[in-house]
Amino acid sequence: MDIDLKKKIDFLVEIDKVKQIFRRTKLFDQSRMENDAEHSWHLAMMALTLFDYANEEVDILRVIKMVLIHDIVEIDAGDYIVYTTEGDEKKEKEYKAAKRIFNILPKDLADEFLDLWYEFEKNETSDANFANAIDRLEPIMQNYYSKGEAWIKHNIKANQIKEVNKKIAKGSTKLWDYTLSMINEAVDKGYIKDE
Amino acid sequence: MDIDLKKKIDFLVEIDKVKQIFRRTKLFDQSRMENDAEHSWHLAMMALTLFDYANEEVDILRVIKMVLIHDIVEIDAGDYIVYTTEGDEKKEKEYKAAKRIFNILPKDLADEFLDLWYEFEKNETSDANFANAIDRLEPIMQNYYSKGEAWIKHNIKANQIKEVNKKIAKGSTKLWDYTLSMINEAVDKGYIKDE
Repeated sequence: MDIDLKKKIDFLVEIDKVKQIFRRTKLFDQSRMENDAEHSWHLAMMALTLFDYANEEVDILRVIKMVLIHDIVEIDAGDYIVYTTEGDEKKEKEYKAAKRIFNILPKDLADEFLDLWYEFEKNETSDANFANAIDRLEPIMQNYYSKGEAWIKHNIKANQIKEVNKKIAKGSTKLWDYTLSMINEAVDKGYIKDE
Repeated sequence: MDIDLKKKIDFLVEIDKVKQIFRRTKLFDQSRMENDAEHSWHLAMMALTLFDYANEEVDILRVIKMVLIHDIVEIDAGDYIVYTTEGDEKKEKEYKAAKRIFNILPKDLADEFLDLWYEFEKNETSDANFANAIDRLEPIMQNYYSKGEAWIKHNIKANQIKEVNKKIAKGSTKLWDYTLSMINEAVDKGYIKDE
């Protein structure tokens, strides 16, 4: 086997571990927790379905690449809840993980994935803003459909959810309006407290 | 909520069921069976990583769309092993499923997904040939890495694997060579019989 193909196969085998990293949120039918591979697939489907609600025009292929690879770092760094207070430790672990895992690939592809991952994390371009918006939207939908289960478990209030996820508006004000309607309804229905 | 956004959200909630459809093949570490959402994510990553081995130039965004949506029909039709003899029944069930599920979406998006799904199934364009090649390659890699477990369970021999999967060569002769090397090694190592 040629050396580049071997590197690519090694990478594809390594990232299978993404299927074993479980998130804090449940599937929509509440039967079990969701893992990072399923989450990433769902985000790619959301990108394909919701892209015309982005505030600025996005390059849909770049957005899809970002959401497909964004959680690969969790193979080494693990999953942190978005309400974590361990921000710096998380960033350092994830940066080391990105370098180790993407560098299994031949250099051109490794550099492309590293750059895309870093752009997603920095959250400053229109593509990254939209990718981050749908990454935040999915668990809010799952929590809303599961009557706020994960929010209740981690003692999260409506005002925290709004504060931590307001960057959805940077990618899509339309999807942020929809997000606010779910959070407000979760309060009205008594799933969670306002503050 | 506007009617188009509502349709899109309904579709995104419906396709969560893809995470509950389990395949006949195990994860690379053999710990459990793989589901369709994880499989589809992995194929999208394979498309991004292996596209330059396609026989003809491919539109990577179209290939990724095909692999992301190709198993959504299994929400209604279920998973069939590729060695099935129930081809016609499978096709009919999947066609009905595609119409029901994609038509939850607004018409333009529904039509796009239906057309892409049908193109993938027909397997005649360069994009579909490559998408089908990686769809066939992933389970062969998983079986090879799990010492032929699913092949042994379903009493599949090396000559059947080669016959049923030879269409990989239509998408990529390079990946077909790699596939043959795995199948031959599985025979040499005593995991499976030649015929």
